[in-house]
Amino acid sequence: VGNDAKQPLAGDPAARVLVAGASGFTGALAAQIVWRHPRLELTAITSRSDAGTRLDRLYPRYRVPLELTELDLDSLEGVEAAIVAYPHGAAAPTVAALRGLGILVVDLSADFRLRDMPTYERWYGEHGAPELFEGAVYGLTELYREQLREAELVATPGCYPTASVLALAPLAERGLLGDVVVSAMQGTSGYGRSNDDAVHFSAMDENAFAYKTEGHRHRPEIEQELAALGSVAPVAFVPHLLPLDQGELTTCFAQTTEPISKKEVQALYRERYEGEPFVHVVEGPPGLRDVRDTNECHVYVTVEERGRVLAFSAIDNIWKGASGQAVQNLNLMLGLEETEGLR
Amino acid sequence: VGNDAKQPLAGDPAARVLVAGASGFTGALAAQIVWRHPRLELTAITSRSDAGTRLDRLYPRYRVPLELTELDLDSLEGVEAAIVAYPHGAAAPTVAALRGLGILVVDLSADFRLRDMPTYERWYGEHGAPELFEGAVYGLTELYREQLREAELVATPGCYPTASVLALAPLAERGLLGDVVVSAMQGTSGYGRSNDDAVHFSAMDENAFAYKTEGHRHRPEIEQELAALGSVAPVAFVPHLLPLDQGELTTCFAQTTEPISKKEVQALYRERYEGEPFVHVVEGPPGLRDVRDTNECHVYVTVEERGRVLAFSAIDNIWKGASGQAVQNLNLMLGLEETEGLR
Amino acid sequence: VGNDAKQPLAGDPAARVLVAGASGFTGALAAQIVWRHPRLELTAITSRSDAGTRLDRLYPRYRVPLELTELDLDSLEGVEAAIVAYPHGAAAPTVAALRGLGILVVDLSADFRLRDMPTYERWYGEHGAPELFEGAVYGLTELYREQLREAELVATPGCYPTASVLALAPLAERGLLGDVVVSAMQGTSGYGRSNDDAVHFSAMDENAFAYKTEGHRHRPEIEQELAALGSVAPVAFVPHLLPLDQGELTTCFAQTTEPISKKEVQALYRERYEGEPFVHVVEGPPGLRDVRDTNECHVYVTVEERGRVLAFSAIDNIWKGASGQAVQNLNLMLGLEETEGLR
Amino acid sequence: VGNDAKQPLAGDPAARVLVAGASGFTGALAAQIVWRHPRLELTAITSRSDAGTRLDRLYPRYRVPLELTELDLDSLEGVEAAIVAYPHGAAAPTVAALRGLGILVVDLSADFRLRDMPTYERWYGEHGAPELFEGAVYGLTELYREQLREAELVATPGCYPTASVLALAPLAERGLLGDVVVSAMQGTSGYGRSNDDAVHFSAMDENAFAYKTEGHRHRPEIEQELAALGSVAPVAFVPHLLPLDQGELTTCFAQTTEPISKKEVQALYRERYEGEPFVHVVEGPPGLRDVRDTNECHVYVTVEERGRVLAFSAIDNIWKGASGQAVQNLNLMLGLEETEGLR
Repeated sequence: VGNDAKQPLAGDPAARVLVAGASGFTGALAAQIVWRHPRLELTAITSRSDAGTRLDRLYPRYRVPLELTELDLDSLEGVEAAIVAYPHGAAAPTVAALRGLGILVVDLSADFRLRDMPTYERWYGEHGAPELFEGAVYGLTELYREQLREAELVATPGCYPTASVLALAPLAERGLLGDVVVSAMQGTSGYGRSNDDAVHFSAMDENAFAYKTEGHRHRPEIEQELAALGSVAPVAFVPHLLPLDQGELTTCFAQTTEPISKKEVQALYRERYEGEPFVHVVEGPPGLRDVRDTNECHVYVTVEERGRVLAFSAIDNIWKGASGQAVQNLNLMLGLEETEGLR
Repeated sequence: VGNDAKQPLAGDPAARVLVAGASGFTGALAAQIVWRHPRLELTAITSRSDAGTRLDRLYPRYRVPLELTELDLDSLEGVEAAIVAYPHGAAAPTVAALRGLGILVVDLSADFRLRDMPTYERWYGEHGAPELFEGAVYGLTELYREQLREAELVATPGCYPTASVLALAPLAERGLLGDVVVSAMQGTSGYGRSNDDAVHFSAMDENAFAYKTEGHRHRPEIEQELAALGSVAPVAFVPHLLPLDQGELTTCFAQTTEPISKKEVQALYRERYEGEPFVHVVEGPPGLRDVRDTNECHVYVTVEERGRVLAFSAIDNIWKGASGQAVQNLNLMLGLEETEGLR
Repeated sequence: VGNDAKQPLAGDPAARVLVAGASGFTGALAAQIVWRHPRLELTAITSRSDAGTRLDRLYPRYRVPLELTELDLDSLEGVEAAIVAYPHGAAAPTVAALRGLGILVVDLSADFRLRDMPTYERWYGEHGAPELFEGAVYGLTELYREQLREAELVATPGCYPTASVLALAPLAERGLLGDVVVSAMQGTSGYGRSNDDAVHFSAMDENAFAYKTEGHRHRPEIEQELAALGSVAPVAFVPHLLPLDQGELTTCFAQTTEPISKKEVQALYRERYEGEPFVHVVEGPPGLRDVRDTNECHVYVTVEERGRVLAFSAIDNIWKGASGQAVQNLNLMLGLEETEGLR
Repeated sequence: VGNDAKQPLAGDPAARVLVAGASGFTGALAAQIVWRHPRLELTAITSRSDAGTRLDRLYPRYRVPLELTELDLDSLEGVEAAIVAYPHGAAAPTVAALRGLGILVVDLSADFRLRDMPTYERWYGEHGAPELFEGAVYGLTELYREQLREAELVATPGCYPTASVLALAPLAERGLLGDVVVSAMQGTSGYGRSNDDAVHFSAMDENAFAYKTEGHRHRPEIEQELAALGSVAPVAFVPHLLPLDQGELTTCFAQTTEPISKKEVQALYRERYEGEPFVHVVEGPPGLRDVRDTNECHVYVTVEERGRVLAFSAIDNIWKGASGQAVQNLNLMLGLEETEGLR
């Protein structure tokens, strides 16, 4: 009843999908995207803290009229795929249980993003499903598209790694990336639904600040991915919190291993991302309003007066930085069009 | 007539002060600070575009019940000091005329900040009073306090140079500053009162972006001042516009000429700024709300995992970044307590 | 070329559409909705001030890659319908010219909303096309749906009348509406793209105020429409400007001609709006975030302690309050599904 | 130690002051005002939840370098006055204990605002110190100034009653006030420091909504005070939450018992508030930015087209609506200048 009713699926769904942890910001958005997706069926949404509540009570604007339930592994018959939006640590055992049932999993936590167990343990503590640690595919779609088509467990990248690596990949892939500094900025949705004094409207309004300045756990993830592309230089990374809701900006200052002109670097980026459905190389520094509520990443590259490459990227941190990219990858895993349900 | 009435001055004023260009954001604030100043008399406020309007109509919250007039150089008898808040280019001839009348001048424009005329001309065009170009004192109070006491013409630094140089001066003065990257962020008051599409509330809300990425004219000013302190490395600088009104943050990533530990660099900063009335070395990354509507600069320094020094500063861009610092310097020029009228 | 490319139309378009005045906030949104509409072809977009500019330069987030041109009445061959987003006064002659060419017109201005010429002249001045004044259909879809199917010229209601009348219509239609007070609030997009000091981010942030307190021209329009439904009582109306971009809230305090209980009035509203695709009767006071970027109107009704009916409505002022409703009506005029292109 | 160091008191303090409950928004501000007050000594600040933390850690911008402790009634020797910022219910017993020690008390809660015990019990539950219920003076300074000079226990009015009653008192005192509707709006600081989903920045940004539409407990308080001035008509009252931090606006639509012209009502208001240090009758609808961070109330009055009086007021809800007014009253109780420490 009303204009938000889900359109009937065109034929059988490509998959019946569970969203576990659907009461947080990214889980709720994942539920909405699946709900509106023309080829997926949203079979169940679960939450520990809000079981019994309808999701459209918590997030009216997402218009998902389903009730949150507690996750019951014994009643998942028919579920073919799951998006897990749990905190790191809590995610791994649930992911393992779902995989044990043969369910395809896209995990939004950090539990399967890193490739080096000691690094994981340093930043996140003991791992809850070490047997799966090496089998996950890193879900930065534009870098791992082919592996993702075959994946059974996908680790959705962190929002900062998504934005940073997309901004720098064209340089790294060519072996051009030297020493790099990333200044990143994010809205309060990146802080999650946790009711911290810091994100009270009265605290954030007319405010902005850097945080985790002694070390943020997305830094090793960024280094890992740039290294996988061929970069050897360390990354300096500082995130900032801004007085806005959805959006993430990275400003990257990169030394190059050999000189490159503005014209050359802009051609390199255009060529690299040509044909990408969600990454757009734009003609000036990107703004957050231009990508809000979309799965797009806008990238701009130039060379500053002293010869450093400046690479900028803008994403919506809960879309391309989390739930949008999760569905982008799920589409690939299921053999669907990559953009389905995301436009 | 209300609680905003100016308190009577304690005895004769130290100076009768003109604020020229008082209808813009920084000029209006300068007028307010002088109006409330216990030792200064606000004799006249002028504006080309808003002559005939009372300032408390344009800026009710500043509560200055004086009428803006057109600047008339023939009727400035008794005026002993002036704060000039004109755009660059327009400022120089007016400053020259005021100096010709023997009036002490604090200029808020860029016209007297640079020491190298070709650099000025590259960024700002032809200079309107070249004969005064070399005689101005650069008004970054914490660096030039003694010269300011004797100055007759002071160039108030740009907001970004103020914040950046205060964040980096302790390293530069010791010859420790190597290659440096400055990522800076500012609210919309830094854009000025100009009615540009970009600062319409509907354009800035939920938005943020870098700007002037191909070169911002505050960069050579930052380099000039760091070089004067002993730094030889170039500066990479990118400013961003944020959805807030007053506030400016700089995040500086600095290589050092020799290794320095977190403990050492924090001790260096504490020592350097000890006793400074407006620069506070704080114990974590500073927030804009903590300095809003004050003349303070909050500085935090640490060392990131790979050994780079991170230096952060937060100011209110129209206070310490403009009009507050202008009065701080005027106090010195007049032999007053530096903090008078600024707390 | 990216994921924003318009999908190919399914077969021949239902109409070729011109949007005149597409560089303002509502015209640009109208262009976007038509651009993405599955059954309409956006043939031309015009602007006096921004001719020669591509619309996606002015409004990147709307992703309409067409160039704005000057309106040329001689080159409109093939255009079957037009949405005119001119200021009042300027709209009427253009509307008349378009009608003279046989083009269906949906006008966003106030020029054809009122039914009484002296009232029009009092609030808006001389009318530019009096011969068409009586022939327009008032485009509050939920009240005039059948007439709209046959209409050739539709006057899109003002945003405040849309929200207010939808909040009060169920009472007025039953003859229950007595004396009524409307307190309305709107974001800065309602102010239009005009670069007024009042909507500079630095002026609106942390601000809110009533305006047009001595008389707003939407008040007679609200009275006209409530009277047409059977109400005889005058309306008191005060609008406020809020520090947000898109959204409009009305809080209506209504005396009733006979007592009515909370249960009765809630049943009345549910029944009245049952089956309406865009008007939803909700279970508590509606929030602006719940309707942002949608064509929905959320309505809540209750009875306060002293017996007055409280009726609340929330819309997005540039969607249901302007361009969304314009396309909703255009759909009806063209015999299309009313919701097409609006979900 | 920086420019925020408290200035030395001029001679002996007029009173040694305790602020109990200083970790919430209004308690913290009360502590700051007392800290900076030239005639008061801030002896202790207490908090149940944050004992052991320095207040300038929780609220850096207030710059109060004292540690919060748990309230210990046995160690209050020398304390002569207290401001109590506890939730209603919790406040009464503590107030009673402090009064038992002979300490003057200004209470910020609702516990002593109402004059009718059944009304109190209906809205707030059982009262914790009924023996003091009738002895408190209602702290709306402009109405009860003389009683406040003699008071030993003052109940600071609610923020909405402060703004509403100041907007309507000139009419009510003359017997002119008939039926009245109050539409009120407030920023998120009025919601308190409680970490509710509703005031997460991500929830409030681009949002606004009415709340407590079935009955707000400030309504009987407004009625009580208007009745005390001579009004007999009921009050309809709806509050709204806005996306800003500090500020409260009331828009009052008042029938009058006899017709009154705009000129007459404006003269009445000017006369009534002439000489008031904090209530200013302004010449157009007041804006929140004009009163932010001040103890002022701006009032505007006019007559709308159909003859209803429109009265508007703007205050900072945590200043004149709470802690500022508390100190205004404390000044009177101590025989100090009413405006001391508040400008």
